[in-house]
Amino acid sequence: MAKKPKNAISPTREENYPEWYQQVVKAADLAENSDVRGCMVIKPWGYAIWENIQRKLDAMFKATGHENAYFPMFIPMSFLEKEAEHVEGFAKECAVVTHHRLEPDPEGGLRPAASAKLEEPLIVRPTSETIIGATFSRWVESYRDLPILINQWANVVRWELRTRMFLRTTEFLWQEGHTVHATDTEAIEETRQMLDIYAEFAEETMAMPVIKGEKTEGERFPGAVATYSIEAMMQDRKALQAGTSHFLGQNFAKAQEIKFQDQSGDQVYAWTTSWGVSTRLIGGLIMTHSDDDGLVLPPKLAPAHVVILPIYREDAERDEVLAYCNSLKEELVAQRYDDEPLRVRIDDRDLRGGEKKWQWVKRGVPIRLEVGPRDVAAGNVFAARRDLGGKGEGIARDEFVAGVSSTLEAIQKTLFDRALAARNEATVTIDTLEEFKKFFADKAPGGLAYCHFVDGPEMEAELKKLKVTARCVPIEGKEESGVCIFSGKASSRRGVFARAY
Amino acid sequence: MAKKPKNAISPTREENYPEWYQQVVKAADLAENSDVRGCMVIKPWGYAIWENIQRKLDAMFKATGHENAYFPMFIPMSFLEKEAEHVEGFAKECAVVTHHRLEPDPEGGLRPAASAKLEEPLIVRPTSETIIGATFSRWVESYRDLPILINQWANVVRWELRTRMFLRTTEFLWQEGHTVHATDTEAIEETRQMLDIYAEFAEETMAMPVIKGEKTEGERFPGAVATYSIEAMMQDRKALQAGTSHFLGQNFAKAQEIKFQDQSGDQVYAWTTSWGVSTRLIGGLIMTHSDDDGLVLPPKLAPAHVVILPIYREDAERDEVLAYCNSLKEELVAQRYDDEPLRVRIDDRDLRGGEKKWQWVKRGVPIRLEVGPRDVAAGNVFAARRDLGGKGEGIARDEFVAGVSSTLEAIQKTLFDRALAARNEATVTIDTLEEFKKFFADKAPGGLAYCHFVDGPEMEAELKKLKVTARCVPIEGKEESGVCIFSGKASSRRGVFARAY
Repeated sequence: MAKKPKNAISPTREENYPEWYQQVVKAADLAENSDVRGCMVIKPWGYAIWENIQRKLDAMFKATGHENAYFPMFIPMSFLEKEAEHVEGFAKECAVVTHHRLEPDPEGGLRPAASAKLEEPLIVRPTSETIIGATFSRWVESYRDLPILINQWANVVRWELRTRMFLRTTEFLWQEGHTVHATDTEAIEETRQMLDIYAEFAEETMAMPVIKGEKTEGERFPGAVATYSIEAMMQDRKALQAGTSHFLGQNFAKAQEIKFQDQSGDQVYAWTTSWGVSTRLIGGLIMTHSDDDGLVLPPKLAPAHVVILPIYREDAERDEVLAYCNSLKEELVAQRYDDEPLRVRIDDRDLRGGEKKWQWVKRGVPIRLEVGPRDVAAGNVFAARRDLGGKGEGIARDEFVAGVSSTLEAIQKTLFDRALAARNEATVTIDTLEEFKKFFADKAPGGLAYCHFVDGPEMEAELKKLKVTARCVPIEGKEESGVCIFSGKASSRRGVFARAY
Repeated sequence: MAKKPKNAISPTREENYPEWYQQVVKAADLAENSDVRGCMVIKPWGYAIWENIQRKLDAMFKATGHENAYFPMFIPMSFLEKEAEHVEGFAKECAVVTHHRLEPDPEGGLRPAASAKLEEPLIVRPTSETIIGATFSRWVESYRDLPILINQWANVVRWELRTRMFLRTTEFLWQEGHTVHATDTEAIEETRQMLDIYAEFAEETMAMPVIKGEKTEGERFPGAVATYSIEAMMQDRKALQAGTSHFLGQNFAKAQEIKFQDQSGDQVYAWTTSWGVSTRLIGGLIMTHSDDDGLVLPPKLAPAHVVILPIYREDAERDEVLAYCNSLKEELVAQRYDDEPLRVRIDDRDLRGGEKKWQWVKRGVPIRLEVGPRDVAAGNVFAARRDLGGKGEGIARDEFVAGVSSTLEAIQKTLFDRALAARNEATVTIDTLEEFKKFFADKAPGGLAYCHFVDGPEMEAELKKLKVTARCVPIEGKEESGVCIFSGKASSRRGVFARAY
């Protein structure tokens, strides 16, 4: 990160990373805290990024045979009791609906009406395995009904004590895939396929390099047999779990009675999976690419690829400059990038030029064009790439238009390469506990440590002290014999360890 | 409705309309009741219709300058207390969250944890004027910040005693637009613009004729100054309110302190609007077009425009028929209808031909193609239009492909014309209370009655007895002098009266 004399965001990343994050969210107009504890308002610029994420992922889900559906947001309390680990995992952070009516109270306000108390409380879904499983049990009778491949876009609630916008909020938006299969092999294939889709989306669309791996026992989804995740590294060298895919075995099938008649006529339990990503991805996007001037957006997810700022002093210049900008916009929206028409905005608000420019820098638009009377006269535009710090240069209009798609592709690639280089720089292989402790010492920069390990109490105790977590056992890692740095026991694979969000 | 010897749906519309409706929902695989009282599961075929509705409406909202955002699903109870009429309207049907944790109970189950009782209960949004208004009060400072044009796609909850799938459910999906303006004129224009958009969508896309009008006082949205709606007529001659647009005046601005500095430097209250349509539209779609063989879909909203059924007896025929179907599909998806590529499915499941055919009839796909070895040999297809009762005819493949877009357009037009004719047939002008009572007598077919009226207790009393409601005062109606059929008072406009959902 090259230092600049003056930055739009204060504090800078180096000065105070968590506070820098909050300021970027604010300066880019992505979201704000709401009047409800732990819940955020997602503002139009932030929501437009989420819409782009949804559109891209949804197409990938559908291309692999999944269909969308919608299930109730309420779950009867008794459903949660059916899967023991699931209760453990979610009962402590549930919003509980107990009444279905308000009535006037003696002080002139309102109160829940005692006469409208629910016989059985309802939980606002923290995740939907139980309610969807109960539905699936009605849908599945024979092997001919399988597989069932369903996805749901929805809001969910997990009561969090400490919240941070996008990264951890009480209510958040996500998608949750839920599938049912006749065999364990097929269910495991599905689990891995969706992990691959998440990884492809993260790397190709978000320009965010990720490690695909399996979670250790302590980090598994409550009720899952195996949990896989994609793990990204943020600029402060902490890891972010960006998506998970769970092989649920027959645990939920047994709890929810998802049975079918197999080809030999026997009644058997089905095998299920679930997988999800959430608005947390936007937190990952921000912390992967943004700089001390604000948000930096990968072109594939940017609500606007190009913003055009008309610049003029007198009314006489105004018409001429705006006409040039409008025809330029026409030419640009006829171009395509990433299989979609270019997204272009003209900002002709009555604002000082400098203020306007910095608003778009902070909002992370990949390319900013400025057009004044001289550009009009010369048939030029002044073009600035956000990924190169926002300094620009004059270029012939035709040349710019002809090259705009490849420029966007170059920006997308630069962002990925830069993030990958940062991750590589922060990645080490460690073979002793002493070295591990030094790497994660309080003042040390930290990063991702690849270490031999055996899951168990020795490891858990050390990790807790150091506030480090086992992120995953990378799928692309190789078998190699070694010893666990925590316990000295024999180990055949390395795991990735890091501080994490 | 021409009688047919045998129908796929039992009972028929004539035999039992409400039960026919439930059976169509079931036979078309649109939705089912869930394990949560009053909440439904929207199945993939039903949800795909909703996705099409969303995509079309969303584009219309964006084309008129609106942006999407997302606000918390929870609303602090005290927010509801601020707007008096709003409390009245919604307090009686609220889901109330009182706890944020469950704990084990002595019987081995779970219960809300007393130690996790919320200081202030939260309401699950029945609509979001209050929470969005509180947010807007932070966004608006100067006239330069106006207008604010926001839409939200969300789930909402209104605790209903009697529910019916799509038409009235405790949780439902909708969009809610919320806008803020500097003047009443602008806010009223917005209210009317959105009503026009809803009417255009209903007629052009859903093929469902609607009457645009203003609601009477008793039917107004709680807290609104004026409520406009689009009203459709179902095949049982009952009216369905299909969308509403509210001019809220300064009522919510005052309750939520949405103030701004105007051009002369004064602090003044803003003017707001809100408008919404919901999954109820799917109920309207079903009851407008469907027949005794199941769902009939207008092509513009059909998840599949064309379904191809390969028909063969022996394995030898199979490859040839499937190859023909696949290349036919390729040709078809290269065609466009309604500015989108054609949506085509091949159903090669291992099912009896008759069963398969009837599944797609019941699901309402506009065009069904059947392809057997003889069609392959002759270069033909057997094509059946759902709107013409599903009987088909052989046609040269090239001719079918070349004409498919205009065939779909013809289906869309037939459905609209048919619905309009049914409405016209059921519409009367009535000038005496006696005639009105006869028109709405228990065994009479009923319909839409245009009558002079003056809102007041005489009218309310008569309507209540007859179970008839004032639907709206049509915008396109003309001024004419007359007398209220209920009170004899002078009246200058006719209203539309009907039984309603």
